[in-house]
Amino acid sequence: MGLKDVRPGIRNEEGIGKVLGILKQSFGERFQTGQAFRDQHAHTTSYLPAQLPDGVIFVESADDVKSVVRVCAAHRVPMIPFGTGSSLEGHINAPNGGISIDFSRMNRVLEINAEDLDVVVEPGVTREQLNTELRATGLFFPIDPGANASIGGMTATRASGTNAVRYGTMKDNVLSLTVVTANGDEIRTAQRARKSSAGYDLTRLFVGSEGTLGVITSITLRLQGIPEKIGGGVCAFPSVKAACDAVIMTIQMGIPVARIELLDEMQMRACNSYSGLSYAEKPTLFLEFHGTEETVALQSAQFSEIAAEFGGDSFSYTQDAEERNRLWKARHNAYWASRALAPHLNGLSTDVCVPISRLADCVVETQADIAEHGFLAPIVGHAGDGNFHVLILFDDKDPDDVARAEDFVARLNARALAMGGTCTGEHGIGQGKMSFLEQELGDAVDLMRSIKTSLDPDNIFNPGKIFALNVQG
Amino acid sequence: MGLKDVRPGIRNEEGIGKVLGILKQSFGERFQTGQAFRDQHAHTTSYLPAQLPDGVIFVESADDVKSVVRVCAAHRVPMIPFGTGSSLEGHINAPNGGISIDFSRMNRVLEINAEDLDVVVEPGVTREQLNTELRATGLFFPIDPGANASIGGMTATRASGTNAVRYGTMKDNVLSLTVVTANGDEIRTAQRARKSSAGYDLTRLFVGSEGTLGVITSITLRLQGIPEKIGGGVCAFPSVKAACDAVIMTIQMGIPVARIELLDEMQMRACNSYSGLSYAEKPTLFLEFHGTEETVALQSAQFSEIAAEFGGDSFSYTQDAEERNRLWKARHNAYWASRALAPHLNGLSTDVCVPISRLADCVVETQADIAEHGFLAPIVGHAGDGNFHVLILFDDKDPDDVARAEDFVARLNARALAMGGTCTGEHGIGQGKMSFLEQELGDAVDLMRSIKTSLDPDNIFNPGKIFALNVQG
Repeated sequence: MGLKDVRPGIRNEEGIGKVLGILKQSFGERFQTGQAFRDQHAHTTSYLPAQLPDGVIFVESADDVKSVVRVCAAHRVPMIPFGTGSSLEGHINAPNGGISIDFSRMNRVLEINAEDLDVVVEPGVTREQLNTELRATGLFFPIDPGANASIGGMTATRASGTNAVRYGTMKDNVLSLTVVTANGDEIRTAQRARKSSAGYDLTRLFVGSEGTLGVITSITLRLQGIPEKIGGGVCAFPSVKAACDAVIMTIQMGIPVARIELLDEMQMRACNSYSGLSYAEKPTLFLEFHGTEETVALQSAQFSEIAAEFGGDSFSYTQDAEERNRLWKARHNAYWASRALAPHLNGLSTDVCVPISRLADCVVETQADIAEHGFLAPIVGHAGDGNFHVLILFDDKDPDDVARAEDFVARLNARALAMGGTCTGEHGIGQGKMSFLEQELGDAVDLMRSIKTSLDPDNIFNPGKIFALNVQG
Repeated sequence: MGLKDVRPGIRNEEGIGKVLGILKQSFGERFQTGQAFRDQHAHTTSYLPAQLPDGVIFVESADDVKSVVRVCAAHRVPMIPFGTGSSLEGHINAPNGGISIDFSRMNRVLEINAEDLDVVVEPGVTREQLNTELRATGLFFPIDPGANASIGGMTATRASGTNAVRYGTMKDNVLSLTVVTANGDEIRTAQRARKSSAGYDLTRLFVGSEGTLGVITSITLRLQGIPEKIGGGVCAFPSVKAACDAVIMTIQMGIPVARIELLDEMQMRACNSYSGLSYAEKPTLFLEFHGTEETVALQSAQFSEIAAEFGGDSFSYTQDAEERNRLWKARHNAYWASRALAPHLNGLSTDVCVPISRLADCVVETQADIAEHGFLAPIVGHAGDGNFHVLILFDDKDPDDVARAEDFVARLNARALAMGGTCTGEHGIGQGKMSFLEQELGDAVDLMRSIKTSLDPDNIFNPGKIFALNVQG
């Protein structure tokens, strides 16, 4: 578990000193070493303690990135790519110090290929910005991890979110990348064609590699047509098991739900209180359907029958945009609603993902663990994928409370792994889940280490993330 | 281009001699070194000259695979995994000699998880066998590369085929693998959960690695519900451009076609002649829709409007299984129909894939090249993906004809690459496309080499495929 694992690594003081001098000279005001900049670039929504970089470079082009990589490589100084800082497992911490590469000024949409349903963007483009810029084309980018994250960060952490049940995750929606590798050259992982069997899948290797293999400089994404109609609705169930059974049948019947989210009793209570709603405080599914007037009505009717079969409340859906937005706003505010249950405490957001047949078991056992230990810890999940989040409210100043939270997370992960699940469906490993990755994949992590060492022999790309190497990091 | 590149590599005679002795002693009749076995395991539907392995081992378990890998690794002898031998680019050739690992006896379906829509299989299971064994569950595995290939081979070459426009390729449908690595240990690349962001995507790294990084011992696949209704139909267009425009609009409108295949004029002539049909000998789309009675009718009607807009003949679809089977049988027999145009000649089947906006240009320019050079070379394509095949009929005994065919393939690949395409959408690189991979991805191929060297330092896993290494292969 992360809190105790986050220790400072080995700092290359001499190299760092030289790099600070060179970057200041080359980039002037675009390179910042002041405390405020350094604080901001280690501060995330993570529960993990911040570890500050030594400086922050605001890159504006792939050539800038190449220059920075060459300078840092020459002096063996770590680089930590920074998008918006919304990662949750300490991805942007700098345990060995080094340079934070801020992409907020590399935020251009470079190319929209409407006929091919793809787009090329710089890493600093955020998902909301992208969808705003796409609006006139009738296309949209569906991946929605909640936060208005950068596309670069979403790529690096293999993000997904509420729409993944229909549109897949970042792994399914990135067609190609350009990446600056350890020698400072830029490579392209694939062409723009929708599929390819040309050699190793370098695109998928970089998606989810959390900045540890190179620095992404552009991303080619698949797009979708904006649905003609969107319908949404809410349905409460007598138990988590009943809700999950409804989800399984929905998936098995091939109903192409766009979103099917599970909120547990405590989460519903938090949302009601925070958003001034009056939903039943029972396990509840939030749904969304994308299609035409006809297909949305059809899908909704099919789901309605399934819900009835498993004792769900009567399900009605709305195509009214305002009502739908209110519904999804409540869902998207789940994090803040949960935090509001105990504003004096910290929040530790963690996720696991299990085969959907085990989702009910995993959530119910987790709820029992929460109750037994008296935690405030609402659960919300991307039920169609078997992925759920627990937000544990705890006091990070109280060592006992920290230890209790750590033990809870360890039990949650062991439970998910025993059910054939993974220690993270979408947050990534970062610093927080390194020990669970070892538990999950065992010797396979050694293959990851071999790949890392072969592509980044000096361990300069985001060291200390995903796995520990023998030497440093 | 492949024909001239297929040269024998460096044979480790001493090691091979030792391994032959050890495997004979350990495996008895399950290890064969007779000419007929060796011939059969280098013979593929490829146009490339055969390069025989020194022996063939019929493995029956992952433990067998581990033993074989340990023996071969100890003596630095190549291993070439063999499924059904249907690969097209020389993947199963043994340029440095070595041991063919035949998976035909590792053909068990190990685990069906109907609620989770997944299945665990051994590599020797063929796709038709799998769908037969799945029938009672109401589920099916959609990837259909034409040949009744093995799941292991399809995984290794990142296969796709006619259904990919709706269901994706092998990269999208493999959840997890077990693989025996160079030290003879078996690793698992991922858990069975539908998504994960736990570390590097080793699953996708092995999918499409063509046996060069390890030996796959089991594959966990995603499944789909068998559609309630399947509808199919055929629609002729006045030009390739018109047919492609109809495809683009179909994709853009988000009509979830299950198959949308383009056959050019020469291919239609071949199919008519071979299958005794009387379709118009014009560029033609073959379509299939999966869904319910209602949605199939709806999709078909939507497509019908699109077809009319681009001058297509009136489109009617059928839900009659027999009529539909006749239609798709003609499509699946396209290869043999084409060969029958000139039974005395050889066939060179090659594929490229371009962004769909460029598909019409690429096909039309390729047809002009075919006409200019007087080739018999029908074209058939997975139009929804921008992927198409050319079957060049040529005389492999005539050096001039071989050179002409090679030049044609080189021009085809250069054309596709210039349009943002890839040198192979689904056949893989093997031996035949190594030079085009270099043209396509340049320095990125060096990353592949680094990964190969880090996971297989002695180059014992299917050497001489995908790229040349500096030392051998």
